[in-house]
Amino acid sequence: MSSEPSTQPRHGEFELIARYFTPAPPGPEAGVALGVGDDCTLLAPAPGRQLAVSVDTSVAGVHYPEEAPAEAVGHRALAVSLSDLAAMGARARWCLMSLTLASADDAWLAGFSRGFRTLCDMTGTALVGGDVTRGATSIGVTVMGEVVPGQALTRHGGRPGDLVAVTGALGGGAGGLVAWQRGERDLAHPLLARYLRPQPRLAAGEALVGLATAAIDVSDGLLADLGHILERSGVGATLDPEALPLAEGLVAELGEAPARRAALTGGDDYELLLSLPAERFEAASARLAALGLPLTVIGRLEAKPGLRGVAMPGRSGWQHFQAEGDEHAGGVT
Amino acid sequence: MSSEPSTQPRHGEFELIARYFTPAPPGPEAGVALGVGDDCTLLAPAPGRQLAVSVDTSVAGVHYPEEAPAEAVGHRALAVSLSDLAAMGARARWCLMSLTLASADDAWLAGFSRGFRTLCDMTGTALVGGDVTRGATSIGVTVMGEVVPGQALTRHGGRPGDLVAVTGALGGGAGGLVAWQRGERDLAHPLLARYLRPQPRLAAGEALVGLATAAIDVSDGLLADLGHILERSGVGATLDPEALPLAEGLVAELGEAPARRAALTGGDDYELLLSLPAERFEAASARLAALGLPLTVIGRLEAKPGLRGVAMPGRSGWQHFQAEGDEHAGGVT
Repeated sequence: MSSEPSTQPRHGEFELIARYFTPAPPGPEAGVALGVGDDCTLLAPAPGRQLAVSVDTSVAGVHYPEEAPAEAVGHRALAVSLSDLAAMGARARWCLMSLTLASADDAWLAGFSRGFRTLCDMTGTALVGGDVTRGATSIGVTVMGEVVPGQALTRHGGRPGDLVAVTGALGGGAGGLVAWQRGERDLAHPLLARYLRPQPRLAAGEALVGLATAAIDVSDGLLADLGHILERSGVGATLDPEALPLAEGLVAELGEAPARRAALTGGDDYELLLSLPAERFEAASARLAALGLPLTVIGRLEAKPGLRGVAMPGRSGWQHFQAEGDEHAGGVT
Repeated sequence: MSSEPSTQPRHGEFELIARYFTPAPPGPEAGVALGVGDDCTLLAPAPGRQLAVSVDTSVAGVHYPEEAPAEAVGHRALAVSLSDLAAMGARARWCLMSLTLASADDAWLAGFSRGFRTLCDMTGTALVGGDVTRGATSIGVTVMGEVVPGQALTRHGGRPGDLVAVTGALGGGAGGLVAWQRGERDLAHPLLARYLRPQPRLAAGEALVGLATAAIDVSDGLLADLGHILERSGVGATLDPEALPLAEGLVAELGEAPARRAALTGGDDYELLLSLPAERFEAASARLAALGLPLTVIGRLEAKPGLRGVAMPGRSGWQHFQAEGDEHAGGVT
């Protein structure tokens, strides 16, 4: 990279590689009034809805292995952003992508865009803008979804007595990273699939609207993310670590005790962690079962602050793990 | 940067440095129903408006000098995105920021956020989300604005006979880069100010709604950007290069002929280039004069395709310049 910039064209790049991305055409069903190709895209939000917006950046060599398959990189960069919409119970509508590339060949771009586009199609998300710049490889994805006012799932609605539950299975992100690091490269491997091709729980999030009192996606690790719900809701919790649903193949990959630790503190699972009154559990479980997704009770919210039930050698509780997580943030303070 | 990623916390980083950014508090005037601190921010768009959205990424050493003052970097990263809203005649409402940092100290972050935040305040743009990640320094900014349906300024509305006009003055971006490269560091220098602290023409864009038939911001260079209007509108044009308004100090910095070239092909000016019927020019000019901004006629749209009136040694017209601009895109094909 030169330290002497030239004046860089700001609009040409996306057009150059637009053939890889098939942006959403204008149309009322996609909510796109004017598609890619002008200074802005024009969107037509559904009347009476709130917009849920979030952005996540994935940096090569930091958030995913530099050698990861291009298709998985495209899928994953979008999935981690969509997961934030899922955690709000929002309906995914639109996304914008900032792609920064050191270099790229046709094969890489074709794979990347296939992974990105396929997940757009699967989730009804219209790609409505983006830019491509030269630099160290990273992908920023802004997502926009819609919710009925007052119905969004937030982190602050948890109440003492609520059950704590989690969708799917945990530890797959951390376990998949270990599998990758020992050389596993088969994307059909269950842990690698969980790590490199996480599935944002959008349908589950929408299904939980009206049932869950609080929700978050498990991106920083169960304990850290539960900590966010506890802090925002002003409650404590008792957790039953034995109840944690472990990702397929996790114990075989890591062994029993490290597998339980991965489920508690590993990141990148992108399941939904939620609280809900006990009397709504059956309804919630039935709705998620219809989506093929288990819902597992792993604890209970309590008025008393702090987290109980978690005891591991050398670990003092969720606040400790949260602090440890922050150390990973990488020297920005 | 390690090639072996760890699982990275996805939500903790922004909170760590949130003290620098004072995100918009919830409130009806900011259109923010739920502020930063959950998985998504919830926005309340004004009823009956379309959303104009765009994203631009600024890479250190590519789009701006790595040694540029932090405050200018923060200002500029937001300004180039807001300029796209200006070109649509949209009212700026919200932005999200992806900040990727190799490393940063408190002084840099304080300056960066001051530049970013001040422009937010000046333009009524609420910062409603963001993430901070570790990696080569770059800043992606997604902006969202609102327009009345059918009133957005687009690239495709130009009609034969319309005047071609430009706000402010041209060549300041390219001239400022030259001044920087010869060692000029005084941000009060008029060219350096134009290059490092461009002013998005948001008020001008809104003032031109109902008057301009097409508009674009001058980011890739006047000829390239006029080319976009011609292509999208299906028209040609004759340009009067002698009429181009030159940025203050440009001739002194570059000399007469290079100054005219910089005005024609230099990027990063962030003025508005527009077409409008001759009978509306007086009204448009009066509205912009009230904003302290000149509006200069530089040509006319014509039914005959192509661009006429531009003749410089070794240059064959705007298509050539556009192709030249594309070479700067940096190896993404």
